[in-house]
Amino acid sequence: MLNLKFPILLASKSPRRQELLTLMDLEFEVMLKDVDESYPDGLAPHEIASYISEKKARAFMDDKLEALVITADTIVALNGEILGKPRDAEHAKEMLMKLSNTTHKVYTGVSLAMQDQVSTFYDCTSVSFKPLSAEQIDYYILHYKPFDKAGSYGIQDWLGMVAISKIEGSYTNVMGLPTEKLYSALAAL
Amino acid sequence: MLNLKFPILLASKSPRRQELLTLMDLEFEVMLKDVDESYPDGLAPHEIASYISEKKARAFMDDKLEALVITADTIVALNGEILGKPRDAEHAKEMLMKLSNTTHKVYTGVSLAMQDQVSTFYDCTSVSFKPLSAEQIDYYILHYKPFDKAGSYGIQDWLGMVAISKIEGSYTNVMGLPTEKLYSALAAL
Repeated sequence: MLNLKFPILLASKSPRRQELLTLMDLEFEVMLKDVDESYPDGLAPHEIASYISEKKARAFMDDKLEALVITADTIVALNGEILGKPRDAEHAKEMLMKLSNTTHKVYTGVSLAMQDQVSTFYDCTSVSFKPLSAEQIDYYILHYKPFDKAGSYGIQDWLGMVAISKIEGSYTNVMGLPTEKLYSALAAL
Repeated sequence: MLNLKFPILLASKSPRRQELLTLMDLEFEVMLKDVDESYPDGLAPHEIASYISEKKARAFMDDKLEALVITADTIVALNGEILGKPRDAEHAKEMLMKLSNTTHKVYTGVSLAMQDQVSTFYDCTSVSFKPLSAEQIDYYILHYKPFDKAGSYGIQDWLGMVAISKIEGSYTNVMGLPTEKLYSALAAL
């Protein structure tokens, strides 16, 4: 459907993002760079996701690629507290106990970089968990090892199936790539 | 996680429902019966989904199965009008033009039948589409043939990726099985 002038490079090792781009009927290659994901103090949650996404995109700008580079960053915010990827099982358990029986927000920043231009946007989705038992949390961490996931869960796996009572906004944004906004941004290029 | 007294029989040929039950870490077998999906006049949308789901479940009640039978029915309602499965490409196009640039509701009724007892519940999700072009609709129908889907679309495929701006409620309910409510119902057995 989309006629893009440049081939797409996805700069993300997330299998969810790769799956979502494929579901959008887009062809792409994956190209990775190590980028320091720190951010300055004082940013609001949506600014953090956008800041890190844009930093990932700027890492490609000196390469003069004849390609459109897509980067993204997803964070989870609970009452203003940022929950990133857990350090270990104990940390994951702590996060999931915080998310239990409450509503948090998931922000994904997305950047599109083409030669010397970068544009960035973000999307936000509210996600409500029902009460989680310690037994459920332990089962989940043991079997699903959510260590590569912001907030220690994947909405598309077991915990998402049994414990998320409601979302408000984009589902794919929670998976790591707000596909509807990305499609609009690509169509506008 | 769940200790059920009976093995599960899923009475649905929908691959989405089978996938969702698998993601819930449940083991099940699929068993199909042909059931007339008509319903009486005058029912509200949630009553229609529940009515048809329960009708599907009652078809198993004379069989005296030592099993828990799960049935479901999903309908799409736009301002009170029920959109079922499309008859053909023309009908699908007509439905998608109606859904364009508006918000509709998806109802899934679920029934659990065990020997001579049936219980039924439903879930409802609001789904917002952005404006769809005739070109997008034609592309979608040609490539995705959404003829087995209420409302002529699948939230988990291309159209869901590029055209759904927002949902409010359960995502899996739109796919055809409200997994969180189903898990609670199974846990309560």
